[in-house]
Amino acid sequence: MVRVPRIVVIGGGTGISVLLKGLKNHAADLSAIVTVTDDGGSSGRLRSELGVLPPGDIRNCLVALAETETLMDKIFQHRFQRGEGIKGHNLGNLLLVAMSEITGDFTSAIKEVSKVLAVKGQVIPSTLEQVVLGARMEDGKSIIGETAIREYNGRIEQLYLIPDDCHPVPATIEAILDADAIILGPGSLYTSIVPNLLVKGVAAAITDSSAVKIYVSNIMTEQGETDDFTVCDHIRVILSYLNQPAIDYVVVNTGSIDDERLKRYQEEQAMPVQSTREEIESMGIKVVEADLVADNDVAWHDSAKLAGTVLDIVHHSISCRES
Amino acid sequence: MVRVPRIVVIGGGTGISVLLKGLKNHAADLSAIVTVTDDGGSSGRLRSELGVLPPGDIRNCLVALAETETLMDKIFQHRFQRGEGIKGHNLGNLLLVAMSEITGDFTSAIKEVSKVLAVKGQVIPSTLEQVVLGARMEDGKSIIGETAIREYNGRIEQLYLIPDDCHPVPATIEAILDADAIILGPGSLYTSIVPNLLVKGVAAAITDSSAVKIYVSNIMTEQGETDDFTVCDHIRVILSYLNQPAIDYVVVNTGSIDDERLKRYQEEQAMPVQSTREEIESMGIKVVEADLVADNDVAWHDSAKLAGTVLDIVHHSISCRES
Repeated sequence: MVRVPRIVVIGGGTGISVLLKGLKNHAADLSAIVTVTDDGGSSGRLRSELGVLPPGDIRNCLVALAETETLMDKIFQHRFQRGEGIKGHNLGNLLLVAMSEITGDFTSAIKEVSKVLAVKGQVIPSTLEQVVLGARMEDGKSIIGETAIREYNGRIEQLYLIPDDCHPVPATIEAILDADAIILGPGSLYTSIVPNLLVKGVAAAITDSSAVKIYVSNIMTEQGETDDFTVCDHIRVILSYLNQPAIDYVVVNTGSIDDERLKRYQEEQAMPVQSTREEIESMGIKVVEADLVADNDVAWHDSAKLAGTVLDIVHHSISCRES
Repeated sequence: MVRVPRIVVIGGGTGISVLLKGLKNHAADLSAIVTVTDDGGSSGRLRSELGVLPPGDIRNCLVALAETETLMDKIFQHRFQRGEGIKGHNLGNLLLVAMSEITGDFTSAIKEVSKVLAVKGQVIPSTLEQVVLGARMEDGKSIIGETAIREYNGRIEQLYLIPDDCHPVPATIEAILDADAIILGPGSLYTSIVPNLLVKGVAAAITDSSAVKIYVSNIMTEQGETDDFTVCDHIRVILSYLNQPAIDYVVVNTGSIDDERLKRYQEEQAMPVQSTREEIESMGIKVVEADLVADNDVAWHDSAKLAGTVLDIVHHSISCRES
């Protein structure tokens, strides 16, 4: 009998949800390791008012991995449009907070909500500590807070966590070390992927793990984070936080974005991430190219296509290792 | 095969929950008809900010009828103690509001939440219209709003709904007409029981129904509502809104309340409701007396004892009717 591959996906909620949604339809043992540095929106309000971990990214991953899409998922994602105090909150965020208060901790809350949603796999925050993202910018300024960093709209030189010695969740390190494949992204480079690598022990576990390591490049650049970044620029940033040339594969989109979508993205100063195959390969990284663009209004990955491409790499690398 | 009795319980959330909790453990087809005139607390805030029906009483009945007591029930009843905006709200109230927004109506929301909680029976608001409770007091003043009426602390002469021509939910009338037994209370006389009788068609359906009609007397009087009221005083108020001598049985508690509890209730000007068997019987109503006091801190009914007593009456009356 062939063992199902153990796959760890690392990132933030919105980006990796797309991949998780596709992966859950395949035979795989899935773990999502999710950043907890969000400080905007409903998550940010709950965080500052209640001192809880920001639940939004976790919520998105839980819904992405929910086995069946039921009304329960819809409720979980429902955002109140009205009502003083509750406006802007997702019910799922409030449910995670309530469950944390009942069970006494965030990890149990996630586990219990996972049962209710029949989640396929596990969702783990990279740390259970209240950490804040800090950035030293190229202009020498230090900016504190994920939202503030993005809004500062400058070039980031170095990211760090405050406090900088925060501990990982043991399950995070275990999942990484046991994995057959570790997938970074897709998602915001500095505010979704890198924050996980800053948690003590996570980067080392990734480089120590014998898993195949895949980076899924974003389709579009992001204003205030990765303006003008090529695929190689993204990779260089990740490698600088891993301290090792630890990426085996890069998944690059070759599908084109229609003019209408491009125009809308241009308004946010976002454009397709450019890639040069030779340049990536010269870093010792294999390039897998495919048309991965979703057939909708946004320039996101198509869940099924991305999951298929990623799983091809995973199965290929497992069979190569075994032969 | 003996058909399970169809039982309709009419009142507000807190009071009738105790009875429903006991009844759900017996073979019975249960319907709870619940008032929607609450304007205090979390329900009141949601009502005034969002224009939704007050969900609190419905929530209590849903949890009372939840087949198994799971973590889901705990979440549903969880009240946020902190957090600007969410403090004081029950998660179940927010869930009902979210579900109403998703499904488009309150009835569907209750049905969907009933599925999630595996509710045994049905919970129906007496009306789906936004009604406000009004009271003409004995001193001639008119007071508007359930909370204001209770806080006015005067003698109520006549209750009414604004608007006064609100329509019942069809399921309410059907359940009443089809019932083998209709149980009024326990619960606040003026703010939980009577508001249901003010909804167009409800009082007439009760008197038209061939069901045995049982009133469960409260154990204690309530400040601002029923100060110094005897069981007969309660009955007379209900009959005045039914326009007919439509009560067959009254369940009266004979258990005593210990001094410690009495003392605490005295601080709220509440005392045991007095009853004179002869006086009740002279109204053509049968009296069933039993020790029904719960063995806890409050002078509430014991769920199991009350349900047992009520079911004895129901089964007795069904077998008398059939013989």
